[in-house]
Amino acid sequence: MSTSAITAAAVQCDPQVGLENKDKNLDRTLELITEAADQGANLVVLPELVNTGYSFDTREEAYAHAEELTGPTVQAWTELARSRGIHLVGGITELDGVRLFDTAVLIGPDGLIGHYRKTHLWHREKLVFTPGDLGFPVFETRIGRIGLLICWDIWFPEVARLLAVQGADVICSVNNWVWTPPPLFDDAGRCMAAYLTMTASHVNGVPIVAANRAGEERGAKFLGCSLITGTNGWPASEVAASEGDTIVYSGLDLMATRSAAIWNELNDLPRDRRTDLYDPLLGYRGGQAYPR
Amino acid sequence: MSTSAITAAAVQCDPQVGLENKDKNLDRTLELITEAADQGANLVVLPELVNTGYSFDTREEAYAHAEELTGPTVQAWTELARSRGIHLVGGITELDGVRLFDTAVLIGPDGLIGHYRKTHLWHREKLVFTPGDLGFPVFETRIGRIGLLICWDIWFPEVARLLAVQGADVICSVNNWVWTPPPLFDDAGRCMAAYLTMTASHVNGVPIVAANRAGEERGAKFLGCSLITGTNGWPASEVAASEGDTIVYSGLDLMATRSAAIWNELNDLPRDRRTDLYDPLLGYRGGQAYPR
Repeated sequence: MSTSAITAAAVQCDPQVGLENKDKNLDRTLELITEAADQGANLVVLPELVNTGYSFDTREEAYAHAEELTGPTVQAWTELARSRGIHLVGGITELDGVRLFDTAVLIGPDGLIGHYRKTHLWHREKLVFTPGDLGFPVFETRIGRIGLLICWDIWFPEVARLLAVQGADVICSVNNWVWTPPPLFDDAGRCMAAYLTMTASHVNGVPIVAANRAGEERGAKFLGCSLITGTNGWPASEVAASEGDTIVYSGLDLMATRSAAIWNELNDLPRDRRTDLYDPLLGYRGGQAYPR
Repeated sequence: MSTSAITAAAVQCDPQVGLENKDKNLDRTLELITEAADQGANLVVLPELVNTGYSFDTREEAYAHAEELTGPTVQAWTELARSRGIHLVGGITELDGVRLFDTAVLIGPDGLIGHYRKTHLWHREKLVFTPGDLGFPVFETRIGRIGLLICWDIWFPEVARLLAVQGADVICSVNNWVWTPPPLFDDAGRCMAAYLTMTASHVNGVPIVAANRAGEERGAKFLGCSLITGTNGWPASEVAASEGDTIVYSGLDLMATRSAAIWNELNDLPRDRRTDLYDPLLGYRGGQAYPR
């Protein structure tokens, strides 16, 4: 018996930086979320900084684009999540006082559930954003326990591990994958970030819904390749192309996730961890769940 | 200037369990090491338990196959490493008092440098072997710092991370990859273990020389796919087929390894690790280097 059937959707799209584009970026996410919900998705994951675009030239420009968690993007997403009865994850440029964060919000049918602030900052993000100060929280929801990570985070295997040992049933991965040491793609058309997603999923027995953006922005070329992995780490459906708006779908369920770790009568991955020799929770200061 | 040019060889072969095969298994490794040295390799990596085969039916059978570190396998490998002036890593069934270990030895032109005992045991290995008691040592050698891991270890990203933070220039991965949750291979013909090798290499900026066995033994089918990754994690040459004896070669050098971590003017992977939030060295009891 499956106790919680999720149909996940990883949305790949192409937001553009510039204040003149901000409303268009938001409207496009609403279109794509609606399309995913029409197809039966009840967990929709959008890329990183999807309401503002990515390539800020200056700190001032980032401030001009940023919104608080009570701002119009989260409001619009919340209304749509409520009306469609879905859960939704997306990346925003978050303003908190004078601090800017590269943030992922988790919204359910009853409103904002929580948020995660990107811990590992990539390239010029370091000139704009404050490193995340909320640890690696896992949120209880009606469809299961959801962990969040953002882009460069997955280069640090500790992140998915810390989400998994805290009981995440699914990890939502919110991305602007943009460059790795060449080659950018292998003969199968996959970028290294797709493999990082697959292996993080595999070694933790947790599905990952990874939405990346596509397109180009101020000379930066994004890599697409959005994908959803099963508990075995392999793509559960197609890996998106490097170009173009698209939505990748896959079914997930709690029974599969919570049973998946057992490999044979003598091995399961969590049991086999040698926490006598290493322990990612040692030194971990713990995540802070968003107050409801 | 490259200060230490290594030509690495990952040897894929098909040892068979059974006392009647033991001499043949050793002789075959000597042939393949010689072939690799003839091709210019100066770091040769052999599969796990390559002197005995893998699928012991009973503990008694494992005892009958096992050797001490002073036994004939290490002696023969040491003589060959000395005569060819090479470094050599291979897996043996190690006897130490009443304990059996799934061990990898590292041998240089001057003799046995060190050994590592498999920490994470797979399936029926748990009925035979004692879990490794030497931590995750990194050995200084004339060609650089070498870390060792064995098969199921790489399912635990902590292992490669702990080797990397201890300064490994290259990781030698000694394997009997045998089964994962299906599919065993993707359309590109690669098994998940090949991707685990690639991503562990990529996120640590350390090349991995991964030798797996092929063939079949008492109903167990091994997966081949031996490979050598560059500091960027991608296969530096071909990934071996799933079947057949073969040797995969690639050049490595210390300059590439020790420089590889810098991605751009703002990011390098070791610096970007958030050791304020997690630290694999916390709780790590440390490896024990082999006394020379």
